[in-house]
Amino acid sequence: MDINSEILQLNWKREPYGLYEPIEYTLAAGGKRVRPQLAMIACELFGGKAEEIAPAAMALEVFHNFTLLHDDVMDHAEVRRGRPTVHVKWNENTAILSGDQMLIEAYKLLSGVPADKLPTILQLFNKMATEICEGQQYDVDFESQAHVTIEEYLKMIRLKTAVLLATALKMGSYIADASAEQQDMLYEFGIHIGLAFQIQDDILDVWGNPETFGKAVGGDISCNKKTFVALTAMQLADSATRKELEQWFSQTLLDNTEKIAAVKVLYEQVGTRTKCEEAVEQHTTQALHLLKLLPQNQATEHLRQLANKLNTRNS
Amino acid sequence: MDINSEILQLNWKREPYGLYEPIEYTLAAGGKRVRPQLAMIACELFGGKAEEIAPAAMALEVFHNFTLLHDDVMDHAEVRRGRPTVHVKWNENTAILSGDQMLIEAYKLLSGVPADKLPTILQLFNKMATEICEGQQYDVDFESQAHVTIEEYLKMIRLKTAVLLATALKMGSYIADASAEQQDMLYEFGIHIGLAFQIQDDILDVWGNPETFGKAVGGDISCNKKTFVALTAMQLADSATRKELEQWFSQTLLDNTEKIAAVKVLYEQVGTRTKCEEAVEQHTTQALHLLKLLPQNQATEHLRQLANKLNTRNS
Repeated sequence: MDINSEILQLNWKREPYGLYEPIEYTLAAGGKRVRPQLAMIACELFGGKAEEIAPAAMALEVFHNFTLLHDDVMDHAEVRRGRPTVHVKWNENTAILSGDQMLIEAYKLLSGVPADKLPTILQLFNKMATEICEGQQYDVDFESQAHVTIEEYLKMIRLKTAVLLATALKMGSYIADASAEQQDMLYEFGIHIGLAFQIQDDILDVWGNPETFGKAVGGDISCNKKTFVALTAMQLADSATRKELEQWFSQTLLDNTEKIAAVKVLYEQVGTRTKCEEAVEQHTTQALHLLKLLPQNQATEHLRQLANKLNTRNS
Repeated sequence: MDINSEILQLNWKREPYGLYEPIEYTLAAGGKRVRPQLAMIACELFGGKAEEIAPAAMALEVFHNFTLLHDDVMDHAEVRRGRPTVHVKWNENTAILSGDQMLIEAYKLLSGVPADKLPTILQLFNKMATEICEGQQYDVDFESQAHVTIEEYLKMIRLKTAVLLATALKMGSYIADASAEQQDMLYEFGIHIGLAFQIQDDILDVWGNPETFGKAVGGDISCNKKTFVALTAMQLADSATRKELEQWFSQTLLDNTEKIAAVKVLYEQVGTRTKCEEAVEQHTTQALHLLKLLPQNQATEHLRQLANKLNTRNS
């Protein structure tokens, strides 16, 4: 089953158009469909039926896109996947309301799993959705928090990013009747690739290729975001360099070209990029180790490839 | 079971506080708890167990408060139930994110109904939630729509307000194993009291007592909202009065005192208040008629009282 075409075949030609067009627009933008893919592969790994996990897989993708939609409003982000965000193309109220409807649509899709498995699937979904909102709240809190530790940051991205990948994998294996231990191992695999994924995202925000990245490169530097890259740089820097970084991060500018260039030079000077790439590497290694403890087949191989691809991706 | 104290006993002392405090604030504000009450009474009417419907009843109240929270952001409303709205007390991003979490909390509560009834309860909830978003979208669309018919307006408030009351009643009767026909009759009863409720709300926005209404009286007039009252007035008015009304409704003012007073005089002149009160009366009568076709017991009597109270309420 090609889950991407299943997602694109969802029909949004419904009235009121003002509610559903932004949903269609958001889902048509593509993206890598990592979450539904993970759910499908995890189900396959344990010999489950694709059609039993597909509704949950689609629910996860719709949910993920809902979070992006509302996050973009809260972050005042103007571009997503190379296109104007919903609140820019339409307006803020549309982004709020169509986002709400997307969250409801995710639950509607989720209801399509076999009835006897619905209570557990719903419980997994609710837990994950809650953690993502909590992660987003910590992310917001960090903005006004003078000092954030790397540990706090990792907890935040675990909630905001990793649990969604982990839950996709757990759902797939649960639908396929994997043992509780196997479900947990896949969940942990998901946490590690999720952390690697988000750290890689922070890296790409600084050193990504503007043509393939889809967002404005240097955005995190411009808005003084305490990312893994920024926190690592502060940790690595001597007191003079730290002062320089702090000075840049105390400024909010209209034109950020100079600031981005200067901060990047400081990042490189103290070895930030290497250190961050090592962290990605480390989480990927831990993920791949967990994979070895599971049945080995085409699906496991596929997960291995995905873990490596997320790690070395440049967009 | 006292469903109001069950709602107030939900525990929101959780981290991150920035996410959960606005939820506690919103739910502690009270309100009449009409929706959970309706679910409980409908369940009682058919001899169902209170503890089986309670999770869904609470879910409906949390969901309702979620819609108010996001609607207040979209409408830039500053006061709700006599207190500052969440986006005023905190900020807009908080209102968006805590609202999202409330919607998820509603689904978490909903999952507490008996497992064998969860699929249908979830399906009823999803349908209702979708209709409410659609209703809100039509409401938004009407703002920029030159002409709105009373029929279109009634469709909008059916979606935005009435289906939630109707679904509460249907859920209660479904949990109590009422027949499909009985469930549908209660649903229709809910639609009629919902329409009466919203029309009464439109009336109170114009002629309510500022001390008991909880919102600013005249708000709909100030922002030129096409309410049942405004549309009825336009229909009743002769061409000269209609022109006067149109002129007032083409203006956006900083101080609306004079406008509210003038529009109210015009409303009264053409008999708007009487006509609107007749509409409330009519829907209440239809609701009470449906009630006669159901088993007669204490619960039916309670619903009868509620229908009458909603109709004659002044806040």
